[in-house]
Amino acid sequence: MTTPLRLGIAGLGTVGAGVVKIVQRRADLLAERTGRSITISAVSARTRDKDRGVRLNDYAWEDDPVTLARRDDIDVFVELMGGSDGPAKAATEAAIAAGKDVVTANKAMLAIHGQALAEAAEAANRVIRFEAAVAGGIPCVKALTEGLAGNEVQRVMGVMNGTCNYILTRMESAGLTYDEVFDEANALGYLEADPALDVGGIDAGHKLALLSSIAFGTRVDFGAVELEGIERITITDIEQARDMGYRIKLLGVAQMTGRGLEQRMSPCLVPAFSPLGTLEGPTNMVVLEGDAAGQIVLQGAGAGEGPTASAVMSDVLDIARGIRVSTFGKPASALVTATAAQASVPAPFYLRMNLLDKPGALAKVATVLGENGISIDRMRQYQHDQATAPVLIVTHKTPRHALDAALTAMSGTGVVEGDPVAIRIEAV
Amino acid sequence: MTTPLRLGIAGLGTVGAGVVKIVQRRADLLAERTGRSITISAVSARTRDKDRGVRLNDYAWEDDPVTLARRDDIDVFVELMGGSDGPAKAATEAAIAAGKDVVTANKAMLAIHGQALAEAAEAANRVIRFEAAVAGGIPCVKALTEGLAGNEVQRVMGVMNGTCNYILTRMESAGLTYDEVFDEANALGYLEADPALDVGGIDAGHKLALLSSIAFGTRVDFGAVELEGIERITITDIEQARDMGYRIKLLGVAQMTGRGLEQRMSPCLVPAFSPLGTLEGPTNMVVLEGDAAGQIVLQGAGAGEGPTASAVMSDVLDIARGIRVSTFGKPASALVTATAAQASVPAPFYLRMNLLDKPGALAKVATVLGENGISIDRMRQYQHDQATAPVLIVTHKTPRHALDAALTAMSGTGVVEGDPVAIRIEAV
Repeated sequence: MTTPLRLGIAGLGTVGAGVVKIVQRRADLLAERTGRSITISAVSARTRDKDRGVRLNDYAWEDDPVTLARRDDIDVFVELMGGSDGPAKAATEAAIAAGKDVVTANKAMLAIHGQALAEAAEAANRVIRFEAAVAGGIPCVKALTEGLAGNEVQRVMGVMNGTCNYILTRMESAGLTYDEVFDEANALGYLEADPALDVGGIDAGHKLALLSSIAFGTRVDFGAVELEGIERITITDIEQARDMGYRIKLLGVAQMTGRGLEQRMSPCLVPAFSPLGTLEGPTNMVVLEGDAAGQIVLQGAGAGEGPTASAVMSDVLDIARGIRVSTFGKPASALVTATAAQASVPAPFYLRMNLLDKPGALAKVATVLGENGISIDRMRQYQHDQATAPVLIVTHKTPRHALDAALTAMSGTGVVEGDPVAIRIEAV
Repeated sequence: MTTPLRLGIAGLGTVGAGVVKIVQRRADLLAERTGRSITISAVSARTRDKDRGVRLNDYAWEDDPVTLARRDDIDVFVELMGGSDGPAKAATEAAIAAGKDVVTANKAMLAIHGQALAEAAEAANRVIRFEAAVAGGIPCVKALTEGLAGNEVQRVMGVMNGTCNYILTRMESAGLTYDEVFDEANALGYLEADPALDVGGIDAGHKLALLSSIAFGTRVDFGAVELEGIERITITDIEQARDMGYRIKLLGVAQMTGRGLEQRMSPCLVPAFSPLGTLEGPTNMVVLEGDAAGQIVLQGAGAGEGPTASAVMSDVLDIARGIRVSTFGKPASALVTATAAQASVPAPFYLRMNLLDKPGALAKVATVLGENGISIDRMRQYQHDQATAPVLIVTHKTPRHALDAALTAMSGTGVVEGDPVAIRIEAV
């Protein structure tokens, strides 16, 4: 048995407390598995006097996470504070400068500053690990970085925001509106303080940007992720999708195309009986497609004390075992800047619009689609009592830019009320 | 860039050729990811003159894999010959003795000799890696050994023989008998030379024994795996299961119970809409349950050139990256000998039997069940023209030994024709 691996933990929320519990309760098991005992030297959090359900008396306390990060008696700085900048970033930088390895669950920080932090870590011969930042307890960062290391990755997909998947599946099962389920989720404490992080797709977009970087050897570029939230999804969309054999998911897709790297986080229709289509509630799913391995599907809890702490510990134990892999699977200097492609891969789309009850209205819409090279696979117009008629169209495969042109032209026809809803149908 | 990592590959079947292709085609990518170039020094196979679709001229040829394993110009011995003993074992032992790391896809060898080989490797400070031995392209060995290293594992389950899952799902979708689909699978080359390896559950049992060892820190004990094949499953069973909301899978389950380690590979009914229940064709699925992570589900191709070669390369690249983990996740000396528990965890069972058309026949069966403490959840007796009537019973939870006692007693009643079929219903 060599010397212990000593942790300094900054952030003692649910996940931090979960990590402390595992270190305390599974000490023997962890030591046997890694050949080193795992200890905690010091902890830090915003408030000291708070019952977190774990005994902290044996650990030094630091009010300032930066001070914690620099302590001589820690080997690994475990960053569980969150936030892309501020204390999390300052302490992470301080830890690296002080020669510590870093384990973090902070997707926002890495999605924004991942390249700079990876470069700093590698210059200092330290590692940054972030299994807990993506899809909670699912070991997907490891599966992609190491398990599929022999593959040219072709596509990465994921349902990586449990709250959005909860909202969408709950709307479907309970027949509630988006607003009703949103309020319910809020009351249950499922939403971030800024709900746009969840329902706007930002949080899931951060995760996608991290997986993209590993998959394609590109510098993390969260700014290039096309983001679309779930706010405009209605029960009608969910029901219509189901009738046609689909379900709606907030799906992240990253793929390298001839035009560059396409990254998007948006509601998509996926086949109801595909693994993604069967996903219920807050569960996460990550789909990795490699040229050799084919499609690998990983499913598990995307959040919560146990699953996220499990992922943090996976990184800590890797470090204890001497496993040292570049932050994004290649040296930071070898990561290339990808050209961002605006959703160039053609796909079928689901369109929903309200047509004014005028003669020739449907013909005008169909003409606009035809003029933009978009052919119609299926169309339904529903009975209606009001002045507008709901119309649903499923197109054949079309590039997004052609669809956008058609949608713009449609609003000029004077027969469409409001903005049509357009949802991509992803082949999975 | 440090020195290259030099491979010696023994076995040039589908998987071996697939590994050579990846090394040749992805040389730059692999070097960038690991910081070392991956080269092949020498290869070996039973016959030299055979078109394998890859260029081998640059590599030394060895007729004898043992000689290959000892060559000075290899760092890693890649064993892809198969077979639990014979050349595979001899060459693996020779490689370890000569100070080489070993990557193998050989589940049979490790299921039988895993402990001895792990001890030898650790004594020589070498590693044995076997991602490709379990569930093809799915990085499940890594997920369990490293991804869930912070967990006390509670249960491991898996559908890990693609041929059996193909047979069962094909019987269902085409309405064919077991014998018909067996012949079809044989004609398609899906079956091992000895079909009992597939349909008897042996191959999948080997894989389960390996996962068990990692999960529970126990010495591999394939002999303790309760094996039951799929040969007795009929279309009737599949249809009845479906009617009740279940599907039949050849399912491996390993869990530590109060009575010891339970390992079984047997047909089970699983809920049709669970991940395991939705699995189609030759796809594999591994389910890992940890105390912190909860349930992690991994799905992918369980066989084939690309997926298996991807798994082999994952191990090779780990070695190139300096990742060195004990064979079964703990030092071999720390693995304990588990008490083998005979399926002690109670479960509901599906029973099918043919009752002779005698007054009181059903009452006698029900009485036998009651006398053994087994209560009936559901029962169906079908119309019949012959002298026997098919009867289906779903029991409430019962220990297997009570069921076995009841089945024995039933055959003494003189009202049951032949042996009843009993299939466990696994909660997943």
